[in-house]
Amino acid sequence: MKTIVLKFGGTSVGSIERISAVAKIIREAKKEAFPIVVVSAMSGETDRLINLANEIHENPPKREFDALISTGEKVSAALLAMSLNKIDVPSKSYSAAQISMRTTSQFSKAKIINIDFTRIEEAIQNNFVPVITGFQGITDDGDVTTLGRGGSDTTAVALAAAMKSLRCDIYTDVDGIYTTDPNVVPEAKKLDRITMEEMLELSGQGAKVMQVRAVEFANKYKVPVRVLSSFTSGAGTLISLEEPDMDTMEKAVVSGIAFQKDQSKFTFQGVKDSPGIASSILGPIAAEGIEVDVIIQNISNDGKTDFTFTVSSTDRKTVEAICNDQLQDLDYDNLLIDNNVGKVSIVGVGMRTHAGIASRAFQALARASINISMISTSEIKITLVINVDDVNNAVQVLHSEFELEK
Amino acid sequence: MKTIVLKFGGTSVGSIERISAVAKIIREAKKEAFPIVVVSAMSGETDRLINLANEIHENPPKREFDALISTGEKVSAALLAMSLNKIDVPSKSYSAAQISMRTTSQFSKAKIINIDFTRIEEAIQNNFVPVITGFQGITDDGDVTTLGRGGSDTTAVALAAAMKSLRCDIYTDVDGIYTTDPNVVPEAKKLDRITMEEMLELSGQGAKVMQVRAVEFANKYKVPVRVLSSFTSGAGTLISLEEPDMDTMEKAVVSGIAFQKDQSKFTFQGVKDSPGIASSILGPIAAEGIEVDVIIQNISNDGKTDFTFTVSSTDRKTVEAICNDQLQDLDYDNLLIDNNVGKVSIVGVGMRTHAGIASRAFQALARASINISMISTSEIKITLVINVDDVNNAVQVLHSEFELEK
Repeated sequence: MKTIVLKFGGTSVGSIERISAVAKIIREAKKEAFPIVVVSAMSGETDRLINLANEIHENPPKREFDALISTGEKVSAALLAMSLNKIDVPSKSYSAAQISMRTTSQFSKAKIINIDFTRIEEAIQNNFVPVITGFQGITDDGDVTTLGRGGSDTTAVALAAAMKSLRCDIYTDVDGIYTTDPNVVPEAKKLDRITMEEMLELSGQGAKVMQVRAVEFANKYKVPVRVLSSFTSGAGTLISLEEPDMDTMEKAVVSGIAFQKDQSKFTFQGVKDSPGIASSILGPIAAEGIEVDVIIQNISNDGKTDFTFTVSSTDRKTVEAICNDQLQDLDYDNLLIDNNVGKVSIVGVGMRTHAGIASRAFQALARASINISMISTSEIKITLVINVDDVNNAVQVLHSEFELEK
Repeated sequence: MKTIVLKFGGTSVGSIERISAVAKIIREAKKEAFPIVVVSAMSGETDRLINLANEIHENPPKREFDALISTGEKVSAALLAMSLNKIDVPSKSYSAAQISMRTTSQFSKAKIINIDFTRIEEAIQNNFVPVITGFQGITDDGDVTTLGRGGSDTTAVALAAAMKSLRCDIYTDVDGIYTTDPNVVPEAKKLDRITMEEMLELSGQGAKVMQVRAVEFANKYKVPVRVLSSFTSGAGTLISLEEPDMDTMEKAVVSGIAFQKDQSKFTFQGVKDSPGIASSILGPIAAEGIEVDVIIQNISNDGKTDFTFTVSSTDRKTVEAICNDQLQDLDYDNLLIDNNVGKVSIVGVGMRTHAGIASRAFQALARASINISMISTSEIKITLVINVDDVNNAVQVLHSEFELEK
C-alpha cells in the first residue's frame, strides 16, 4: 500500500483545537495515500519539562533529561490518536520504543540507526493510522534518547525512507520556504519549489523551517519532502529531487539568503602547521556531536598558521572546555574567541554556472559598509561571517541585490 | 544485597521542593538497605492528562488513554533521579517497559504478571538507585497499560516481593493507619501496628491509605509493609505479617472502623433458584474487572430467591448495561437499584475469639436509630450496608462503642 508520512510540529498540535484540526488534515490526506503520522510535543511542553529539570539540577544527567523530555511527544501522539478515532479514522499511537526506533547512545543528540517497521505495517494492514512520537529513539539497552531540537523532522523523513513513502509532508506554522526570513525582509517571497541541495544549505544556515539532518536524510534516501502550513491551506514548497530546468535556472541564479546570528568564532593563532592539525583540533569537537561550520586555515607562515572555525553559541562552553582540556598540549600562540559574529549565506544551484555572484555580493556589502571577516564558498553557496549587528542589514542588501522579491 | 522498596505518592512528589525532600529521605534510607524507589505522577498531573483526553473524546480508546496517562510517572521518575544525582546519590529512572513489567492487557485495570528484574539488579550492582514508574506496565505486545488508581502501591509491593526486599515503605501524606477517618471521628487514633488481614479489610473498605490489591499482594507474598508520611517524621504504621500476641489482642478486639459512601446496591428479586445462579449473575461483572463486594442470597422460597450485591458507584453504569444486555435471559421478577447506600465495617483480628461483637454493634446502632439493610460477616470483619446519610453517624457510634480513641 502506498503511504505518505505527515509530520506535525509543536504549534500544529499546540492545543486541543489544533489537534482536532490536524486530525481532519490527516483524514483528508488518507484519500491520497495511507498516512503515517509523526508528532512533536505540544508547543511549550518541552520547555516546561526542561524548566522542571533545570529547577532541580543545573546540569541534569543526560539519560534522565532525555527520559523526561521525551514524554511530551507521547502525550501529543496519544491525544492525536484519540482525536482521529473521534472522527472515525481508526488510529493507534506508538512510542519510539514500541517501533524499536534504534539510535546511537549519544543522549540529546542521538542519531537514528534502524527502524523496525513490523508494528507500523501491522497497524496499516489493520487500517489503523499509526501516530508516532517524533524526536526520540531508544538505545540497544532500551534507554530513551532524543535527537536534538527539530529531531521530529528527522524521524519523519527516516520513516518515509524506511517505508518507501510517496512523500514526506512537514506541517509547520509557516506556509513554505521563503527567499529569506520575512521578519528581516518583508518582501521575501515564498518558493514553490526548491532543490534538495538548496534546502540543505538554507536549512543548515538556519532557515529554521526544517532540521538540517532531516534534509540530509531526505537527500540521501531520495525522499520528496513538502513543507506546508497546518494553519492555512496551500501547497507549500516542494523540495524536489530533480535539478530545475534551464528556464528556471536562468530566472533564479540565487534562490535565497540564509542567516544565523548566534555564532561563536574560535581562532587558534600561530598553530604549528603539521599534517593532521585540523583533525586534531576538530576531532574532539566532532566527538561531542557538535557541528562545526565555517572552517578556515590560512596559508602557512614560518611553519605556523591561523586556524579558525565557527560553532553555534549554544555549544560555546563545551568547545571552550575542550580547548582547555583536550587541546592543552596543542602548540599554538593564542586562542581568540569572538561571540559577536553571525553568518549570511547566498544559496542557489544556478550559481554553479554563473560566475561573478561572489564579487557582486562583496560589492553590494562594501557599498553598505559591511565588513566581512571570513568567506567560505561551495558550488551552490557563499557564506560570509560578519559582525552580528550587521546581519539584518546584510540580508536586506543581498536580497535586494539579487532581486529575490521579484 | 538487602533492598528496601520505597514508594512515594503524588503529593509526596507534587513539586520540585517535595521531590528534593524525597531525595533526602531516600539518601537516609540507603543507610538501612539499598533503596528501590517507585513513584506516582506529580499530584494533579494525571488529572490534567485525563482532562485533555476528555476534551477530545468523551470515551477515549483505552489503549490511547493508558499511553497518555502513563507519561505522568515517567516525568516524576526522571525528575527524582535527577534530584538524587544532585545530592550525590547515583540514580537512574526506569519505565515499566524498561524493566519489562508485564501485565494483562485489560487497559486501565491491568494486573501484573511478571517482572524482569535484570536491569534493576544491574543498576544496584553499579550503585545506581533505580527509580521506577509506578501504576503502569506493558502487555506482551509492548502496549502500555495502567493498573488503575492507586496502582503504584501494587507496583511497589510486587517489586518488593520479586526482589525479596526487607520491607516496602509506602510514603504518603498521612502519617499512618488510623482507627477510622479522623475527618469523621476527630478522636481517631493512629495504630503503630496492624495485621495484614486487618489492613486488607480496612483498605478494601475504603480506608484509602493503600490500594487493596497492593495489600493482597503483600499478604500473598509475605512482604512487610510500612505506611508513613513523607511530610513529617515518624515510624508510621507497620503492617505486620504476624498475629498480635495475646496482650495486644486483649486490648484491641476491634482495630478500626472502615467505611465507604459511594455504593450502589443491585437486587434481583424472584430469581429462579438453580445451581450456578450466582456465577451467572456475577461472572459477566467480574469479567469487566469490577469488584463486587457484599453479596447476599436469601433463603429460597417457592424455588425463587432474592440476590443482592453492592458495587462502587463508579461502576454502576457498566453494571446496569451488563444487567440489561448479558443478563436479559435471566429469569427474575424485578431488578432494584439503590444508589443511596454506604458501607460501614468493624475490623479486627481479635473478633475471632470474642463473641458478641456483632450484637454489641447492632445494639449501639439501634440506640442511634440507624437502620441496617444488609449484613455480611467474616472472621475478622462485620460489614453493614446502611443508608448513605447514616454513615458518618454510624462510624462515630461504633468508634465510641469499641473505645477506639483509647
